[in-house]
Amino acid sequence: MNDVFLKACLGEATPYTPVWLMRQAGRYLPEYRATRAQAGSFMGLATNPAFATEVTMQPLDRYPLDAAILFSDILTVPDAMGLGLTFAEGEGPRFAFQIRDEAAVDKLAVPDMNKLRYVFDAVSSIRKALALRGDKAVPLIGFSGSPWTLACYMVEGKGSDDYRLVKTLMYQRPDLMHRILAINADSVAQYLNAQIDAGAQAVMVFDSWGGVLADGAFQEFSLSYTKRVLAQLKRTGAEGAVVPRIVFTKGGGLWLDEMKGLDCDVLGLDWTMNLGKARAIVGANKSLQGNIDPHILFANPRQIATEVAQVLDSFGTPHTDRAKRGTGHIFNLGHGISQFTPPEHVTALVEAVHSHSRKMRNRD
Amino acid sequence: MNDVFLKACLGEATPYTPVWLMRQAGRYLPEYRATRAQAGSFMGLATNPAFATEVTMQPLDRYPLDAAILFSDILTVPDAMGLGLTFAEGEGPRFAFQIRDEAAVDKLAVPDMNKLRYVFDAVSSIRKALALRGDKAVPLIGFSGSPWTLACYMVEGKGSDDYRLVKTLMYQRPDLMHRILAINADSVAQYLNAQIDAGAQAVMVFDSWGGVLADGAFQEFSLSYTKRVLAQLKRTGAEGAVVPRIVFTKGGGLWLDEMKGLDCDVLGLDWTMNLGKARAIVGANKSLQGNIDPHILFANPRQIATEVAQVLDSFGTPHTDRAKRGTGHIFNLGHGISQFTPPEHVTALVEAVHSHSRKMRNRD
Repeated sequence: MNDVFLKACLGEATPYTPVWLMRQAGRYLPEYRATRAQAGSFMGLATNPAFATEVTMQPLDRYPLDAAILFSDILTVPDAMGLGLTFAEGEGPRFAFQIRDEAAVDKLAVPDMNKLRYVFDAVSSIRKALALRGDKAVPLIGFSGSPWTLACYMVEGKGSDDYRLVKTLMYQRPDLMHRILAINADSVAQYLNAQIDAGAQAVMVFDSWGGVLADGAFQEFSLSYTKRVLAQLKRTGAEGAVVPRIVFTKGGGLWLDEMKGLDCDVLGLDWTMNLGKARAIVGANKSLQGNIDPHILFANPRQIATEVAQVLDSFGTPHTDRAKRGTGHIFNLGHGISQFTPPEHVTALVEAVHSHSRKMRNRD
Repeated sequence: MNDVFLKACLGEATPYTPVWLMRQAGRYLPEYRATRAQAGSFMGLATNPAFATEVTMQPLDRYPLDAAILFSDILTVPDAMGLGLTFAEGEGPRFAFQIRDEAAVDKLAVPDMNKLRYVFDAVSSIRKALALRGDKAVPLIGFSGSPWTLACYMVEGKGSDDYRLVKTLMYQRPDLMHRILAINADSVAQYLNAQIDAGAQAVMVFDSWGGVLADGAFQEFSLSYTKRVLAQLKRTGAEGAVVPRIVFTKGGGLWLDEMKGLDCDVLGLDWTMNLGKARAIVGANKSLQGNIDPHILFANPRQIATEVAQVLDSFGTPHTDRAKRGTGHIFNLGHGISQFTPPEHVTALVEAVHSHSRKMRNRD
């Protein structure tokens, strides 16, 4: 197996900087659109392990990526709670039921994990498909939305540009918000543990909307519940290997000093954060994942290579002393890849990450 | 005149912390909605100095705010460039023409300031209305969008949730983007100088979308053009008084260390930034303006007072040594007030800012 990604997560020396892309299995790929058409809907794709396996593998057939990520959605957990998730064509996710008052919170509970069986089946199925690649197999990342991010959608019922409803509930009735978040945290922990049992070799918590919170509110309503998830997670998978944990708060760069205390191996960063500064703040006990602006993929391959080199150089050469834990770097986008991305530009990006990062190691 | 706001901008001692609110003249006020209905459209309101004066004064009649802000829009400058600004009911701004290729950039130029006469007339008219208040008159803030923020709308043609088009142009053709930004910067400087000549007593640059840029791109495409604006601004108004300059980059907290070098008096902050940390980074040569989450206004008055006190306490007591320049604090929201805000909650917020900040000064 290509274990460069796992080693970088754990701060071990690697011959080059591993790379994978958020939403690497997605609409920018014609083969994805073909499978999606067969499945009929996004949820038709996500709830069918054969389809989910097929689309998870597609970007690996095209590009020498260093990790696979389960094809699923961050909102499967509230769906299993009974909120009724759908994706209208050309729109984002939408819940049939919203959690906006005490009566709704009273009915909320950690869902039966059997309702998420399709996810765990997809994990097992993808692991089997990966194993067929032998030496070229890459690790599989499982994931979930963070408790706060799930709460945003559960209250708003869909995406929002101002988070008025969820913030109103949070400021008016912090007691109710804490109850929702506690249930979400315990649900997410069970969900990620079941993914680990099914074969996920790393897990990532997407705190996509932590960055919309005020300083103070972030710590109270997002960070503390991410901690609650991490405290319940299994350390090792069925095969006995350590399962690295990645936490990504979009827009969370200002709180790195507090996030560095999280019981995780990797912190994800968006493109607003300088990686050199982040490394200085976080120190040697965590790796960093990120952080190029996905829109760079609309430039030409030469420009892409220049921007990739700048991001790699801003991080610097990862620690290479095998004797002790260092700071690894995993190259990624700071947000999911755009559906309008030319697929051949991804080739240029992956090639640039691998070649420039090898050069950096030889230079030093 | 109540000069507490101007003194706080310049780091002079004040008996309490001044407060004003972004979009304080707006849809949350029934009297605003009535005037808006008379005017027929947003631009009908903004281009008529009598209406603009009326709505600018409305929040001052309700609340003891410490500053007035010109009622206008950040996109008047590209409108004067010929891009055709409209506001559809219930939607954001929209331009009839977009700047997306070299031919469009070739046609772009600093607009004739006479096309913006309605803005300068509104400034003069508001100053006259304020003067009628005698001792209770408050200073008038003029403003513009930043060069980068204007460019976002000029390229996208409207608001965006991913800035794909403007970022694509920026990454593919940085030469064209620099040409647009240079024209925008010179236009904004002329525009703000004309507002100063007409009577604006402070000016604010809204870099509303600087925070969507990657580290590196922010410095190159936003910050450097804000500098270019500031370098051309008049220091004093027609009456000989110093005109403080405020720069607000939403989502710019990570770059405070670089923004502290700007030739301005005040840096605006959004709610993600801890004010105590910001003060430590910025040092004693600038004041800070901000930064409560406007959604706190949906909580009850007691909760509002608690949150206001936390924000004031996080800043700490402003420097009170009259002999030298210190760090003043101007209380504001970290974003425009929501149209759904109950007007009486604004009363609670303003009262809490004034009373708690007086207590802080007496305590120390």
